Amino acid sequence: EIVASIEAAMNNGPLKGRHILVTSGPTHEPIDPVRYIANRSSGAQGSAIARALLGLGARVTFVTGPADVAAPIGVDLVEVQTAAQMLDAVQAVQNVDVGIFAAAVADWRIANASAQKIKKDGKGLPVLEFSENSDILAIVSASKTRPTLVVGFAAETQNVIENATAKRKRKGCDWIVANDVSPSTGIMGGSENDVVLITADGSEDWPPMGKDQVAQRLALKIAEALG
Amino acid sequence: EIVASIEAAMNNGPLKGRHILVTSGPTHEPIDPVRYIANRSSGAQGSAIARALLGLGARVTFVTGPADVAAPIGVDLVEVQTAAQMLDAVQAVQNVDVGIFAAAVADWRIANASAQKIKKDGKGLPVLEFSENSDILAIVSASKTRPTLVVGFAAETQNVIENATAKRKRKGCDWIVANDVSPSTGIMGGSENDVVLITADGSEDWPPMGKDQVAQRLALKIAEALG
Repeated sequence: EIVASIEAAMNNGPLKGRHILVTSGPTHEPIDPVRYIANRSSGAQGSAIARALLGLGARVTFVTGPADVAAPIGVDLVEVQTAAQMLDAVQAVQNVDVGIFAAAVADWRIANASAQKIKKDGKGLPVLEFSENSDILAIVSASKTRPTLVVGFAAETQNVIENATAKRKRKGCDWIVANDVSPSTGIMGGSENDVVLITADGSEDWPPMGKDQVAQRLALKIAEALG
Repeated sequence: EIVASIEAAMNNGPLKGRHILVTSGPTHEPIDPVRYIANRSSGAQGSAIARALLGLGARVTFVTGPADVAAPIGVDLVEVQTAAQMLDAVQAVQNVDVGIFAAAVADWRIANASAQKIKKDGKGLPVLEFSENSDILAIVSASKTRPTLVVGFAAETQNVIENATAKRKRKGCDWIVANDVSPSTGIMGGSENDVVLITADGSEDWPPMGKDQVAQRLALKIAEALG
């Protein structure tokens, strides 16, 4: 990894001079000081993508929630906890050529989060009120300073291509990397992935491969698209 | 750590011949295949306690949720995800002299967890229904095969001694290790702890010290109590 980042700094890869934003990992939405709602995301695919981009010479800003895997060496690292913090961090990044939104961002936060630990005091079960979080992918896709290429991710458990194709249009992004994260696939938390790339031209079904290989193929495809 | 476990296997520590059950880490309660509710627990204090007990010659069964820190080498390891799985695992352990319940077990689970990913489909916000989980500490304390010594933990954010003293009586355990986990203390996820030990004789306020030192002091106190 150190070697890869040194190589990236010295080489003239096809992404040299490009600034790429990658989001990664889960977000944690607090319920009270000791409890939170989380998404099942190790951050492995996001980190692999950042490494592959560095390897092709890009400058990478890496905005990550509390992931299991370490952030790659050589990125500009921004660590956040919640979806709201991730949006703020993303909006603070300037002059982005490509935005890759691999983080598993919580769709909802707890509107009535408690400053004190909720006690099991016989008063019955807690009532959690939810608020919808801002949609980072849709906001970036519609922004005046939109990156040239915006890539979203879709973690689906059924009708993967159909759901992901609809998501691409709804969000206004250019590509969607869709995968089936049903527990039976072992993809969530595993080292392998099985993705379909959705673009304006249709869908490309990639064979099952390691997350590092998915990252490498995506990075090369991005280099090609930027020309 | 390897040295410590070899020493433990060879030595004649004061806990030689004793079988101690330690629970550790958080539990994860699924909402759907990609979301869950978690407790903020690194498992650092539970792992440190298991290591200290091994060091004094005990046999340790270590039942742990998905913790950040690795389980100590030399324990009998049982890995679980949910509170219900932790209860099953605890009840399956036989002939326990001491039970130490350091895990941050979820008080509630989602009664209406979904087998498919809940979609943000414009039908409004999700409604989560909660069920109360079984109280592992109270069940073990009241069981016919109760360990000689049952030690609970209390993570409080206010009125620490008062809440923990009431908890000791309510649960029927012998000791409570209470700590203030308010975010301002930095204890949650940190390497230091600041605990009060609550027994039938009252409370002992230990000075702030490393989690390893808390573990060592607790292990020695257990050896002393068993005589």
